[in-house]
Amino acid sequence: MPFVQIYLGKHLSQQNKKDISLAVHQSLVDIFSIPQADYFQVIHAMEPGDILYPESYFDVPHTGNLLYIRITARAGRTPDMKQALYEKIASRIAAATPVSADDVIIIFVENDLEDWSFGRGIAQMVKK
Amino acid sequence: MPFVQIYLGKHLSQQNKKDISLAVHQSLVDIFSIPQADYFQVIHAMEPGDILYPESYFDVPHTGNLLYIRITARAGRTPDMKQALYEKIASRIAAATPVSADDVIIIFVENDLEDWSFGRGIAQMVKK
Amino acid sequence: MPFVQIYLGKHLSQQNKKDISLAVHQSLVDIFSIPQADYFQVIHAMEPGDILYPESYFDVPHTGNLLYIRITARAGRTPDMKQALYEKIASRIAAATPVSADDVIIIFVENDLEDWSFGRGIAQMVKK
Repeated sequence: MPFVQIYLGKHLSQQNKKDISLAVHQSLVDIFSIPQADYFQVIHAMEPGDILYPESYFDVPHTGNLLYIRITARAGRTPDMKQALYEKIASRIAAATPVSADDVIIIFVENDLEDWSFGRGIAQMVKK
Repeated sequence: MPFVQIYLGKHLSQQNKKDISLAVHQSLVDIFSIPQADYFQVIHAMEPGDILYPESYFDVPHTGNLLYIRITARAGRTPDMKQALYEKIASRIAAATPVSADDVIIIFVENDLEDWSFGRGIAQMVKK
Repeated sequence: MPFVQIYLGKHLSQQNKKDISLAVHQSLVDIFSIPQADYFQVIHAMEPGDILYPESYFDVPHTGNLLYIRITARAGRTPDMKQALYEKIASRIAAATPVSADDVIIIFVENDLEDWSFGRGIAQMVKK
């Protein structure tokens, strides 16, 4: 059910993009216990000037590899679960790609069970 | 007032895109009773590898025609109204384009009346 | 902390894009008192047919310069602060670019302090 939107620089390779996508998905599987098949994402490969960021914020420096991960999910996960998710996503991306953990920015937005249709015009999560 | 973001494959034709856009808008008019002029959308025509989805989820199979429709609207519609909206959008798209109802994924996100400006720097829905 | 997504026509120049981006950021600094370094945005330069809008809504007419600004921020700002923000953003963009205040559409979405990671896998705003 999470819907993930990734905004990254077009200089990253197809393999990098794939690894980043899988890092996010596998972290959601591990920490939020979503099913493996619950894999819904879009990736935007952006021109360098179209991703804007500060040199540093909260004492974390940033580079041209900075990427944004926007996760929409139903409400209900605790702050601790979210913190664990961020840590897992950032470390997985850093391990698999040239993007460092410092350049992984995550924004979480929540909705409700009735706010999802996974096809066929049905709101599957509240289906009676 | 809804703001609609559509993410679809670039293989779809301009006419398909137009038909999908209108299917979503007309369904919002019919089910949520928004005015005809309340038509605010962006469409992202994506590379095939940039839209990610499972082969099947909730027993609904997916193909390369899968598209995401992200709807932001003010809070207040009931789960039944949302379910009716999903059904209308999916059936309209299936009737007008090569995209089947199974490949129409919808994600709904809500905000409040003060969260909208329709130009001129005014928050029209809470204007005193 | 706000994350800003701007959807504008690709006919606008690089300088226009930069001025629009800065107009939004500086307005957030002025009205919401965010730090100067809290500058996180993506800009989507769209094909003309991929930005859809009505000729007029709420008595505000629109042109091909219409742009969407989607702001995600933590909850807590009052309707009056949001109204002041919209006014500041629209007037700044109109002063610095060919885009008129009528064509500046703003959509606000809120989340919570634990919904942000500014890199390094940390939820900085709720860090213990």
